[in-house]
Amino acid sequence: MIIDCHGHYTTAPAEHTRWRADQLEAYQAGRAAPAYPTISDDAIRESIELNQLRLLRERGADLTVFSPRASAMGHHLGDLETSVAWAEVNNDLIARVVDLFGSHFAAVAQLPQTAGAPLAAAVAELHRCADMGFVGVNLNPDPSGGHWTSPPLTDPYWFGLFEALCERDLPAMIHVSASCNDAFHSTGAHYLNADTSVFMQLLSGDLFARFPQLRLVIPHGGGAVPFHWGRYRGLADMLGKPSLDDHLMGNVFFDTCVYHQPGIDLLVEVIETKNILFGSEMVGAVRGIDPTTGHYFDDTARYIEAADLDDESRQAILAGNVRRVYPRLDELLAAQGR
Amino acid sequence: MIIDCHGHYTTAPAEHTRWRADQLEAYQAGRAAPAYPTISDDAIRESIELNQLRLLRERGADLTVFSPRASAMGHHLGDLETSVAWAEVNNDLIARVVDLFGSHFAAVAQLPQTAGAPLAAAVAELHRCADMGFVGVNLNPDPSGGHWTSPPLTDPYWFGLFEALCERDLPAMIHVSASCNDAFHSTGAHYLNADTSVFMQLLSGDLFARFPQLRLVIPHGGGAVPFHWGRYRGLADMLGKPSLDDHLMGNVFFDTCVYHQPGIDLLVEVIETKNILFGSEMVGAVRGIDPTTGHYFDDTARYIEAADLDDESRQAILAGNVRRVYPRLDELLAAQGR
Repeated sequence: MIIDCHGHYTTAPAEHTRWRADQLEAYQAGRAAPAYPTISDDAIRESIELNQLRLLRERGADLTVFSPRASAMGHHLGDLETSVAWAEVNNDLIARVVDLFGSHFAAVAQLPQTAGAPLAAAVAELHRCADMGFVGVNLNPDPSGGHWTSPPLTDPYWFGLFEALCERDLPAMIHVSASCNDAFHSTGAHYLNADTSVFMQLLSGDLFARFPQLRLVIPHGGGAVPFHWGRYRGLADMLGKPSLDDHLMGNVFFDTCVYHQPGIDLLVEVIETKNILFGSEMVGAVRGIDPTTGHYFDDTARYIEAADLDDESRQAILAGNVRRVYPRLDELLAAQGR
Repeated sequence: MIIDCHGHYTTAPAEHTRWRADQLEAYQAGRAAPAYPTISDDAIRESIELNQLRLLRERGADLTVFSPRASAMGHHLGDLETSVAWAEVNNDLIARVVDLFGSHFAAVAQLPQTAGAPLAAAVAELHRCADMGFVGVNLNPDPSGGHWTSPPLTDPYWFGLFEALCERDLPAMIHVSASCNDAFHSTGAHYLNADTSVFMQLLSGDLFARFPQLRLVIPHGGGAVPFHWGRYRGLADMLGKPSLDDHLMGNVFFDTCVYHQPGIDLLVEVIETKNILFGSEMVGAVRGIDPTTGHYFDDTARYIEAADLDDESRQAILAGNVRRVYPRLDELLAAQGR
């Protein structure tokens, strides 16, 4: 079995995307947002069957853990009210995808966040989505979109959200949205910087002593972290922290969204198998074919196949670890006899 | 021969560091800065002989390309006038180190920068230091200290500085200073994020078409870039840019400040030998001993020794490439018959 823990609905029907533009335009003009359009099941079916489901089948995977498009979360646009409405329609759309394709997709929620605003709305949406059967959430550590005005994840600001995650037994994937800071290209810098920054926030603090059940997935292979694993081991030592294994790696997981073989080889060499979850973020940041291999850059299952792993480790990365870190997904699959 | 392209004077005499504190205190109080203290040659000798020179010898290296302490540049503190004065005394101190230990150190300048201020003062200091025999400069892409308020390096804001670098045939190492943003740990996040961000700024633009002679060294092994080399190759393709080799790698170089063997192995696997410069940043961010090896994390020459490289490539990384990228250093060494 192969479970991709990192997929976004980057191909949502045009009416949905258009409504977001209309919503923001209304916000700017001080008007109420227009009514959300009717989107047919056929439009959803087509957007999935021609894209994510086609590629899932072509690549031999079974299921994608699926969330709204990360770059379009746009927590820095509008205000908390617009973010709440946008998160709700996004999550409802994901729920419809899962209703239509329940054997191929499981739902992860976008949270309504606004820099500087309380997280009560995010907690409420988390509970609403958990009640609908969602298996996780995406958490934006920088809702300002590249200005990094929020406190580190070890700050009490975030604790209410972590309590709700633990209560519902959901993991959070740490995922920023598009950058509105010219210094940071969204997918070429901001995404990876966020991964690196959050790992170091966690290293500097002691969050998992307070929340031992909390599980955070740092995507894009952990940003710069595995490449600089010696630096982080050394910084933990200099900061008087326990070893990374004891301090963080019971609660932090990296996905495999690293788009070349040498990167995946390093990832599986330095990070323990139990901390690696298969992910591709397909139909995402990098959509082309690698001329050196003839295959899609984001067809990361190929790299896992070719990596120096025994069968047990490979299977853990491709499915077992995802089921362990996303227990609600494991329950859904078990109920399906899988 | 072994040349370390990345060393900072992290052990400067206490009077020097104290003056900076006094200078900033005076700035805050609206007073003139106190006079810079007299620092004896013996104080400088001791600070170097017990630290960088001792380690240089212990590790079998010959020379360090040496600049003021990066984390103490503090371009976000004070104003342009304080930054000018602080850069001058720092660079003068580096010049004295090189006067005392000319066979073991070559000088690289700190530039006076202030977010939002023109770069004329930085250009003037660059020329002053070039006249003193400096072989390069450190360029801070984020003088705000973690708020990233400056335009990308491809913006005309920076062009006057690049013109001066080309005119004097000096390379710039891209190096931020300490972070004053709680989201970013200085050495565990901000440094690496800057490396990653600048590479992507360069990828997104076309700077080297305008400045074909400009050479930029991205330290810390290029941040996240080599680990995500497939992502960057794919992004270049998606953005309609030439291949990374043609677009950037005639002008961009990575050092070897990656503090474990698997990281260095990946670096030399994915990045062409000609683009890799030996560096350690010793007595820097990570000062401890790796319990898994029994050696200092930052003793990067050991990793280069153990990497899968032929003798010619290894020697190019350890010295030849540094001499090529820093031609003023090559001239100095040639004049010494080395």
